Parts: sequence; C-alpha cells; structure tokens
Amino acid sequence: MNEKRIGQRTVALSNPPSVLSFANIGGKFEGQGPLSGYFDELSQDSFFGEKTWEKAESAMQKKVVRRALEQAKLKPKDIGYILAGDLLNQCIGSSFGLRELGIPFYGLYGACSTMGESLSLAAMLIDGGFTERAIAVTSSHFCTAERQYRMPVPYGSQRTPTAQWTATASGCTVLGREGAGPYITHVTCGKIVDKGITDPNNMGAAMAPAAYDTLAAFFRDTGTAPKDYDLIVTGDLGELGHGIVRDFFSRDGVELGDNFQDCGLLLYDRESQDMHAGASGCGCSASVLNGYLLTQMQRGVWKKIVFAPTGALLSPTSSFQGESIPGICHAVCISAEK
Amino acid sequence: MNEKRIGQRTVALSNPPSVLSFANIGGKFEGQGPLSGYFDELSQDSFFGEKTWEKAESAMQKKVVRRALEQAKLKPKDIGYILAGDLLNQCIGSSFGLRELGIPFYGLYGACSTMGESLSLAAMLIDGGFTERAIAVTSSHFCTAERQYRMPVPYGSQRTPTAQWTATASGCTVLGREGAGPYITHVTCGKIVDKGITDPNNMGAAMAPAAYDTLAAFFRDTGTAPKDYDLIVTGDLGELGHGIVRDFFSRDGVELGDNFQDCGLLLYDRESQDMHAGASGCGCSASVLNGYLLTQMQRGVWKKIVFAPTGALLSPTSSFQGESIPGICHAVCISAEK
Repeated sequence: MNEKRIGQRTVALSNPPSVLSFANIGGKFEGQGPLSGYFDELSQDSFFGEKTWEKAESAMQKKVVRRALEQAKLKPKDIGYILAGDLLNQCIGSSFGLRELGIPFYGLYGACSTMGESLSLAAMLIDGGFTERAIAVTSSHFCTAERQYRMPVPYGSQRTPTAQWTATASGCTVLGREGAGPYITHVTCGKIVDKGITDPNNMGAAMAPAAYDTLAAFFRDTGTAPKDYDLIVTGDLGELGHGIVRDFFSRDGVELGDNFQDCGLLLYDRESQDMHAGASGCGCSASVLNGYLLTQMQRGVWKKIVFAPTGALLSPTSSFQGESIPGICHAVCISAEK
Repeated sequence: MNEKRIGQRTVALSNPPSVLSFANIGGKFEGQGPLSGYFDELSQDSFFGEKTWEKAESAMQKKVVRRALEQAKLKPKDIGYILAGDLLNQCIGSSFGLRELGIPFYGLYGACSTMGESLSLAAMLIDGGFTERAIAVTSSHFCTAERQYRMPVPYGSQRTPTAQWTATASGCTVLGREGAGPYITHVTCGKIVDKGITDPNNMGAAMAPAAYDTLAAFFRDTGTAPKDYDLIVTGDLGELGHGIVRDFFSRDGVELGDNFQDCGLLLYDRESQDMHAGASGCGCSASVLNGYLLTQMQRGVWKKIVFAPTGALLSPTSSFQGESIPGICHAVCISAEK
C-alpha cells in the first residue's frame, strides 16, 4: 500500500495534480530584468500602497492569490488548502496576507525553498484524496529582508561580492485534481544538509550541498539522468552555489549541461543590474516559476522540468551564536504529460 | 475520488494512522506541575547542557525525537518524513535540532498550533500512501521566547494578569500505517481568524475565535457533539481564552462540560505555581499530548479525544505596526479504535 514512494525519498504521484493557474508580482528591479515580460504585475512602489514594507509584502501575497484565483475562475471557497510561508519572523507576510481569504491554512517555513515545499505538500494533499484543489504561495521583499537579516536599508551598507539580492516578488500556483497540465508528477523531499559554512553573505555555498543531495536523490530514485529533462532549475543558489552543484555532479561523472539553470541567475540581468551573486528570497524562485517557467511550459518550449528551490535554515541569532548554516532543497518534477 | 473530505474542512482518514510511540521533555517548572509524572525527562538546567537557550531548545527536540524513536524501536532511516516547527525566528529550534537525523524534513510555522499542524500533515502523508511512518515534533523554551517576543529574562519585567507562561518543553509523536493505536481518525484544518484583538499580553482572547471556528467546523463536519468525546482539549488558550470558547458555544446552545480542557490550564498548578493565565508555547500542547493525554488513552481512561492546539500568528513587528493578532487552530481526533 506504499506504491507511491519510489526509491528512498521520492514520491511518484498516482494521479498527477494539474496546474490550474499561476500568477506572480514583482517590484522595480524585477521589472528591469530579463524576465519583466513574464510578470502579471510590476510595481514601482516598494510599499505597494501600504504604510510599511511588511504590510507591502502581505499585500503582494494577497494580490497574487486573488489574481491566480481569477485566472482559474475560482473563488476562495473552491480551495481546500492554502500552503504558504515567507522569510519574515513568524511568517507574517503569509498570515497577514492571507487572513481575509478564509481558506484552510497550513503555514510553512522552508526559507527560500518554500515554493518547492508548498507545491510538494499541495500536490500530495490532492493526490492523497484530501482535497480537489490547493494553493501554494510565497513571497519575499528586499526591504523587509534587509532590515531583518542584515542592515536597515537607509544605512546603505556595503555588500560582499558573494551576497545575493533578495527579490521583491511573490508567486502563486493553483493546483487541482483535474486539468490540462502541466502536471506535478514527482516530489522529492529535502533533508537538512550542513557542511559547516558559516558566512551568511555566502548562502549559495551553504545551500549547494543540499541542492546536490536532493537532485542526486531525485535522479537515483526515478532512474533518470539530467539529460532526460529540458530544464533543471535550482532555487536561488546564485553564481557561486550553482557552480558548486555543477562541480559536485562532475565528480560523480555526471555533466549538467546548459539545461542546468538557477532562478537566482535568471531574474536579474547579470551585466546591467549589479546584483552581485544573483537573486535570492522565497519570492525569487516563486516568481520565476509562476511566470517564466510555467509560461514556457504552456507554450511547449519545455516538456519536462525539475524545479528545485533551496533554502538556508539559519537566523541572525544562530549566526551570532557561531553556528553554521543548514541548507535544504525540495524538488518537484513538472511535466506536460501525466 | 474525494471521499476522504467530509463536510467543508474535515478529513476522515481512510486507514487511520496509528501512534507508534511518543515522548516529551520538560524543564524545572514543568517538573513542579501536576503532570510531572507524565514526562519522560525533566531537566533542572534551563540550558540542557548547551551554551545558549536557543541551542538548548534544539537539544530538546533532538533528545525527544531520539527517545520516541527508541521507544518504537525505529531508526531515523525508517521514517519517511519529519514535520516540525517552533516559535523561534526562522524556526531554528527545529532546523538545528533535527539536522543530524537525515530524515526528509518539511518545516512548519503554526505558532503554538504546530503540534496540531504537524500531526495533521503527518497523518495525511501516511494515509495518502506517501510513507509508512512520519514524525511530528515541536518545542518551546521560556527563555528564548521571552527575549525574542518580550523582554530579556534578566530584566525581570512585570507580567500582566492575562499573560501566559511559555513552557520549556518539547513533544514528539511517531505515526505509522500499521499499529495498535491510538489512531488519528479525523483532521480539521484551521482558518486564520482575526477578530481585532491587539494586546499581545492577551493571546488567549486573540486565539479563542479560531478555536471556536475550528471546533465548530469539526463537530458540524463529523455530525457529532461535544458529549461524543471523552475529552476536548484546546492548545494553550489559558484561563481567559478557554472561558471565551465556552461562552461562544453556550450562545449556540452547546454546553461544553467538564470534558472541555486546555493544555495551558493542565501543565502548571493553578494555585501553587504563579503562571497567571496559564501555560503557552508550542511545547505546552506538544508535551501535554505526548505525555499525559496519550498515556491516559493507552491506559483506557479515554477512548476518543479531540486535540485542538491554537496559535497566534503575530510577530513583535506586526504588533509594533499596530496590527491585530490573527489566530489559528488545527484539530485532530484521536481514538482508541479505527
């Protein structure tokens, strides 16, 4: 009766849930990047009409869920579960953003891997027969993240070359039991991996071992290789972390070719926008998935992709106490066919 | 194909997962309370042998999972998923506490409702055929919570009469597809409910509407009444919040009798221990469930209980910004028979 579990960590969904709709929203810098045409909404106002950046982040989640529901011609009452989380302390981006909706809510904390975690759980809750439809959503905001994790924005603190830029963005996917695809066919749950990296300005290096661990498990469990996928896209490892994952696979004799990408390297222009090692934040992979990636899948550009966002499970307190940075990566296989 | 969903928000598990083992751990004050005999381990040292209180909280989670695994004669590799969260910023109690285990990990944030959320998702992941066994665990620590949410402990800040005392405790349940019970038969997912309470020293009042909302949905969906259960136990509403829920049901003509209890009122002695409105924190309901409640069920004292922990989804930042306090409550029905 455990036929859905294949290999050690991967689940093959018996009736792969379908993407019913998706939406994303971004800020000023996201609108200046190469994916600007793939956003449903771009705001020049970092406050999104609110009085604080935290309220702005909640407003983004509310807007993006409303828009995804509209696109699917659904009401909040049609949704069985909403799975959401964000980077803010106590995940207030989600709890305040979603409180008006009245949808049964499971709060998550997966740092920047949250879009992968929420998609995974939403897909399993549908496939397990617990609901017809579920929503996965997350967000991040440059200004809320900077003042919580690093320095107040007005201080104008210097950034290291390995630092990444937290995206001001949100993304939402509505999944359902029946639909025209693309479909969530496989889910690989991440393990916490900590190789002892202690520099919170080099998150890519801290998360890379987790990305390698989960992707290797996914390929092993499914009996597939990177060449079987049109795109393998990690969350927001950025330039350094992405290169480390490529190196890890190389040592195993597996070459990740041009189809190995990273949401953190896709969101901003690597030349004209000075974002150092790339983008980060829950909203990075969420907005890249729920715009560029799913749009290209609908257009038939890609048939089968692996979406594998990564998260760094640290806090400022853990760093102050000399702790290293545990990472995690949740992988989801999305396919045009069931 | 949606036969598991009954009513609007409740799931009736088709093959109710069994509790395989449970464990809890507490601190000095938990050991002075009326439930002291129901703890697996009680520590006089608030640091649990570590250098900081945050590391102490992680140590509690690690210890409690190891103990629950031992009691079930299982190894980490036998577990398909571990679902965990806590009150600390970025949930570092869980990520650092569980990183060595190597068990596939989904991080949660449900504030003090986390034990209900983790049990719910663990039960559904097993019932859905995604794993044989899963673990639900959470923790809280008085000293980490005080300095993060209120005042540094050495400051000796005066507490209001409506304030609750964050438990220094952790609790863990191991669930499996096959077992001798008790069984998780029903799960009702909470909605975020916010009635405009703004006083962070009166969490009970803020969470009470959510508890009423979820319990009312549970009784409506299952077609049962409070008298059908040996015990209905909310998480940590404390004295005020618990009374409010009783009043809400009274207005509906439903009398919650003596079998309506609250983990926050059970953990400490209401006379000799000056804990004001009662206990709180993720570890309160987690340690009461994984000690007193499940032990009494195993002894046959109760046959069928509703465990409904509540959480307040605020943060210090949201309160500073004048926001009210959203609450949530996740209910789980635990029965001696399938």
